[in-house]
Amino acid sequence: MMDTNSFQPDNAASLDDKTRGLINRRSVLGDAYRLFYRTPVHLVRGQGQYLWDADGTQYLDVYNNVASLGHCHPAVVAAVHDQMQALNTHTRYLHERILDYSDAILATMPEQIDRVMYMCTGSEANDLAIRIARAHTGGTGLIVTREAYHGTSALTSGASPALGGAQPVDATTWLVPAPDAYRVDEPDTGAWFAARIQACIDDMASKGVKFAGFLADSIFSSDGVLPGKPGFLQAALQTVHSNGGVFIADEVQPGFARTGESFWGFGRHGLVPDIVTTGKPMGNGMPVSGLMAKASVLASFSASTPYFNTFGGNPVSIAAAQAVLNVIHDENLLEHSRNVGQRLLSELRALQSRHSCIGDVRGAGLFIGLELVTNRQTKEPARALALDLIEALRNAHVLTSVAGPYGNILKLRPPLAFQNHDIDWLVGALDQCLSHLNA
Amino acid sequence: MMDTNSFQPDNAASLDDKTRGLINRRSVLGDAYRLFYRTPVHLVRGQGQYLWDADGTQYLDVYNNVASLGHCHPAVVAAVHDQMQALNTHTRYLHERILDYSDAILATMPEQIDRVMYMCTGSEANDLAIRIARAHTGGTGLIVTREAYHGTSALTSGASPALGGAQPVDATTWLVPAPDAYRVDEPDTGAWFAARIQACIDDMASKGVKFAGFLADSIFSSDGVLPGKPGFLQAALQTVHSNGGVFIADEVQPGFARTGESFWGFGRHGLVPDIVTTGKPMGNGMPVSGLMAKASVLASFSASTPYFNTFGGNPVSIAAAQAVLNVIHDENLLEHSRNVGQRLLSELRALQSRHSCIGDVRGAGLFIGLELVTNRQTKEPARALALDLIEALRNAHVLTSVAGPYGNILKLRPPLAFQNHDIDWLVGALDQCLSHLNA
Repeated sequence: MMDTNSFQPDNAASLDDKTRGLINRRSVLGDAYRLFYRTPVHLVRGQGQYLWDADGTQYLDVYNNVASLGHCHPAVVAAVHDQMQALNTHTRYLHERILDYSDAILATMPEQIDRVMYMCTGSEANDLAIRIARAHTGGTGLIVTREAYHGTSALTSGASPALGGAQPVDATTWLVPAPDAYRVDEPDTGAWFAARIQACIDDMASKGVKFAGFLADSIFSSDGVLPGKPGFLQAALQTVHSNGGVFIADEVQPGFARTGESFWGFGRHGLVPDIVTTGKPMGNGMPVSGLMAKASVLASFSASTPYFNTFGGNPVSIAAAQAVLNVIHDENLLEHSRNVGQRLLSELRALQSRHSCIGDVRGAGLFIGLELVTNRQTKEPARALALDLIEALRNAHVLTSVAGPYGNILKLRPPLAFQNHDIDWLVGALDQCLSHLNA
Repeated sequence: MMDTNSFQPDNAASLDDKTRGLINRRSVLGDAYRLFYRTPVHLVRGQGQYLWDADGTQYLDVYNNVASLGHCHPAVVAAVHDQMQALNTHTRYLHERILDYSDAILATMPEQIDRVMYMCTGSEANDLAIRIARAHTGGTGLIVTREAYHGTSALTSGASPALGGAQPVDATTWLVPAPDAYRVDEPDTGAWFAARIQACIDDMASKGVKFAGFLADSIFSSDGVLPGKPGFLQAALQTVHSNGGVFIADEVQPGFARTGESFWGFGRHGLVPDIVTTGKPMGNGMPVSGLMAKASVLASFSASTPYFNTFGGNPVSIAAAQAVLNVIHDENLLEHSRNVGQRLLSELRALQSRHSCIGDVRGAGLFIGLELVTNRQTKEPARALALDLIEALRNAHVLTSVAGPYGNILKLRPPLAFQNHDIDWLVGALDQCLSHLNA
């Protein structure tokens, strides 16, 4: 269900010649590639929260968390350029950058998390995390949410039901319903969710599968952006631990000040995970990812299994990652994300009062879900409207996309450079587009 | 067996304070990380084929193929810097760079290979290649050589017996002995090797496992650098195809002009593989990898399974990759690799006449294996000598390492910037170190 926002070839006739020409040339990439939008966007430049297409049209980016600080942030550009001129090699030689960064990133974590390893993608981090959880517990059974996405390797694809299509969920992967406070009619979402996890573990046991761990991002991004009440995941953590499992916090989405309330998504819940994985925003576009863990949880794997990732932890990638940490600190982006996110949330709630199709608005920091329904009582998902809306927004030069099992939730996740004055553009465009769509 | 060249903690007492301090700080990375050498090297700068440590000592790099053009090549540095200032985003928007590069990289391939996809690491490329082979054939059985290394993801680790230790080989992975013309006493290595592959396929069938494919790099790097006679792999390709399997050429090691005789390692053999994977040298240090395939082989996977790699094919990584292609062309590095490699090979063979411990010298372009034995008749591997030798070379400021199932083969694989005058340094150091070791 991830990929409801994608160009369909039968829409090619409506495109201008240049766009159609580029799309035709993409046949060389094979059929697994997807483009956003009925009318794809041909981007050539980015700065901060803005992108420009080949015609010079400026767009407001309300979607991309890879360029998390902002597109082409000068501090990251300079750090990479300086290090690329000096040295770029691997971790089998000594280098100070990786050690300084390791100290810095672990200083953002609970003290129990005292080890860090480096890869290039979030997929690689989650792939390794699952292997570490299995080595530590001796189990294989993994629990993820029903619309989770955790990566594109063989192992992580099998733990990513959001991929849908022909990608099967592994036999050792159990699916738990997401803690969706809007749709699950329970007074205590946390207790309800923990009970669902326990039911999965019990089902595993009945089938002779030993529980290894629970893997989730704390904002349940592809399940539809479900921040929930701070702290509600503590019950899930307790359930995982009381059953001998490992709690893996996938911070590829909510990490690096995104949720405004704490540097890491799990921090909103006061959790101490066993393993933390990162990716997209870590290097502001440089391919770098990491895995942080308690030494005791890492021990079984690392004592027995060599792990070497050629590009992982190279000085250039680490220079980018260090610049990201510095900028988050220097520009007070955690506080900024919280403040601008709160104002955006409140303006979206005001918009909700004018458009009955907006069933729910929820978020933490600059990570907001806007759920569209055909009827607020039945909460029937307005999937077609959501697709029409993101296309209308694209034509109003605001870029975002959809999430959730029904594809009816707008995922609003701009670069952290997003400012209060951008709210006017975004909310104004939403208002106009919804009015135009009679919604 | 990969990791015989690694620092052991009980050697810490012999180190200077600064080195020991850095090593102690590395405990934060956990126990899976390894350092090269009994006395690790603390590098701070690289240029071309040279590296410098923190004390300003210059080293000749005869090992690293990530900085394949040469460390900090200015054309790659400039290309990355320019693109980082303009835009770095993903493949769900249109961008021309990826299309121009795709055309350029496919132009280096046999025309039957007409599709290309992008990832960040060789592991990700091989992980996907195995999935594509399985989707295309409906089989699961994979054949790799006995000391192969194909990656660090869960799937590719299970196809990497070189990892040794506690890393099990997957139940669907069959191991074939490497085509080692030095140790296998057969008149036709190619026919012998093809017969061994057929034996694996027959064994699979007897166990109810359907054959999916054969995965190898054509220079059998971690099996000990086994270039063999050009063309000898054609029999293996025929065997793979006549059994309905997919031939995957892992070009992470021999690709990008490395072997001197053709741009790709498989080109030395006049092969047309079904899938080609790349990695390390593709971006001269920028994390970028690729998978090229025949459209017909890719079709089953890509028609049914979405694949999106967030960082894969981003404009900055592609800018690096394009610069690499341009430099290989502009600096005639294929011809250079062939010419300098031939001269190095001939000087190493002259050295062999003076040192009886050198059992074999073999190579293609700037990828050379120097095999050490205790006795030329019995060919008993001189593993301890090889470890002493690379340490002595390190102390003579020449960096290389060992390969092969016995760890007795020096892997000489310098950046392509390596020049004729560097041969004197390398061969002189080898001569002196071997004499000093009484070998």
